[in-house]
Amino acid sequence: MQTRRFVLAHRPRGVPRETDFRLETVDIPAPQDGQILVANVYASVDPGIRARLGEEATYAAPLQIGETVEGATVGRVVASHNPKFGEGDWVAAAFGWSEHGLSDGRGVRKIADLRVPPSAHIGVLGIPGLTAYFGMLDIAKPKEGETVVVSSAAGAVGSAAGQIATRSGARVVGIAGGTDKCNWLHDIGFAAVIDRRAEPDLGVAVARACPQGVDVVFDNVGNSFLDAMLPLMRIGGRIVVSGQVADYNTPAGERPGLCNTSHFITSRLTMRGFVAFDYFREFPKAWADITQWILDGKLKYRADIDEGFEKLPSAFIGLFNGDNFGRKLVRIGLQI
Amino acid sequence: MQTRRFVLAHRPRGVPRETDFRLETVDIPAPQDGQILVANVYASVDPGIRARLGEEATYAAPLQIGETVEGATVGRVVASHNPKFGEGDWVAAAFGWSEHGLSDGRGVRKIADLRVPPSAHIGVLGIPGLTAYFGMLDIAKPKEGETVVVSSAAGAVGSAAGQIATRSGARVVGIAGGTDKCNWLHDIGFAAVIDRRAEPDLGVAVARACPQGVDVVFDNVGNSFLDAMLPLMRIGGRIVVSGQVADYNTPAGERPGLCNTSHFITSRLTMRGFVAFDYFREFPKAWADITQWILDGKLKYRADIDEGFEKLPSAFIGLFNGDNFGRKLVRIGLQI
Repeated sequence: MQTRRFVLAHRPRGVPRETDFRLETVDIPAPQDGQILVANVYASVDPGIRARLGEEATYAAPLQIGETVEGATVGRVVASHNPKFGEGDWVAAAFGWSEHGLSDGRGVRKIADLRVPPSAHIGVLGIPGLTAYFGMLDIAKPKEGETVVVSSAAGAVGSAAGQIATRSGARVVGIAGGTDKCNWLHDIGFAAVIDRRAEPDLGVAVARACPQGVDVVFDNVGNSFLDAMLPLMRIGGRIVVSGQVADYNTPAGERPGLCNTSHFITSRLTMRGFVAFDYFREFPKAWADITQWILDGKLKYRADIDEGFEKLPSAFIGLFNGDNFGRKLVRIGLQI
Repeated sequence: MQTRRFVLAHRPRGVPRETDFRLETVDIPAPQDGQILVANVYASVDPGIRARLGEEATYAAPLQIGETVEGATVGRVVASHNPKFGEGDWVAAAFGWSEHGLSDGRGVRKIADLRVPPSAHIGVLGIPGLTAYFGMLDIAKPKEGETVVVSSAAGAVGSAAGQIATRSGARVVGIAGGTDKCNWLHDIGFAAVIDRRAEPDLGVAVARACPQGVDVVFDNVGNSFLDAMLPLMRIGGRIVVSGQVADYNTPAGERPGLCNTSHFITSRLTMRGFVAFDYFREFPKAWADITQWILDGKLKYRADIDEGFEKLPSAFIGLFNGDNFGRKLVRIGLQI
């Protein structure tokens, strides 16, 4: 049997181009004893992938030229020789930009609760939602009446983070690009929304929207944004480094710096970076909470779906222009 | 009665100059009911004062032109109309660069335990020692076998911080300028010492001294140093922002940035600034612990004392050249 996949053809410089990826058709073996074959229905593109395309080692080794591009997937089991999985089961995995995946079951999770559409397991029930959940509830810990600023607020992480902070009784200010995204953030309960495309100076705009100052910054953007926030922070402020999308395409020596760090002492600030996966023992509780909030209508999310396997590179590249509105997915197979 | 004091004459640009301060002789009233008059014996100069000489508001309002320069003092009560103080009592206070202080007793602490010389209440038993104590034990929390890097390690804060970390079972690497300071740090138990004057690249030197990476950076210097440490940090590393002496003389727009912040996510770093005074409820326990460690010979400290009231400005300015070796004090009065 054959399957298609995208591999890394060249290490990108700056924003990736379509030619940095190569479409290949390869043989995929029949599953052996203990193995399952999965037909992927959705594949994820997310900005974090960019970090592994360069030569710098980050939290994982760099992807090698010729390797399949990594990414979360949701699919269905088409053949199983593993007693834990049956044909037709929906599964969440990380088979990457590939039409199929073969596995002994490790790293593959059966989606038992289908009350929320399976595609959500790449977004609000996947790493983005878990990032929002643990970043907000374990690190930021917003209190009733505090002011929380969320950047990239209409994205998969930001929109969940903002709604979780609102649930905690905080006043949440979101930053997003464009009227549609801003309107949606109002609709899902953000107290105030700033359209970064309409504001020449985000520091000034956030200061205006937060007359009492800022207790929490939940940042998905990077230093250029964060540096403008530091002077606005209140005593005891917390900065959650959730993502740094503006910096992923910039070589290490050219990234903007955080200069307003004198506020760390004067305002007693704490800045912390994290990776959701470190909380994996607590994932079941998070999945249960998020599922319930969705079913109760208290947590809204958007998926932004491109159709067709060959769209994966362009969907990925579009992330760096802010083209996506919600979690970007590519539907790569039929819902068999 | 008359007393001398130094007031702010001009707001310094860059490193302060002696002419930024003016010596004045003023009348000091006789103490009224409830008041005490204190003859200061030691006055402190410390880098943190620099932050209040500019126009930027920090954790306290800027000092106004014509106001007495602030600073910790240790002195003796020469007249008391307050039942809590007797003539001859040693007291720790913050009368600033002044020969005498008049107070209703608020902000004045009687030094009851004289087993450690009173001058230590400006240093290892004053804000520097308390900064080391709470920064290390409440924020950095080094564990047995972890690697801790301390900058300005021969200073009042750094030397105490390093010894406290060593007590916790950590391997402590100190950075200081010059052979004398480095030798002293070896003598007081630092596992390794780096002479920053002999090293063209501190990042390389620290990497060599810390082959397993760095778990804690206790920084007194600022971004130029800290940025070189971020890539060396281990998963879960902690950065304590204790001081930023290299940045105090640089205008806000010209300070170096922290650029290697991608390590916040990949290494799950936490960076936190603090002010020792926030722990004031826990000061009595800290004083008791530090006193006992000193008496047991487990915590060494140095005072670097200039003689004569008129030396205050030059002693202060020398801090920014690293001239001091230990806590800088000026003896401004006799031990009456």
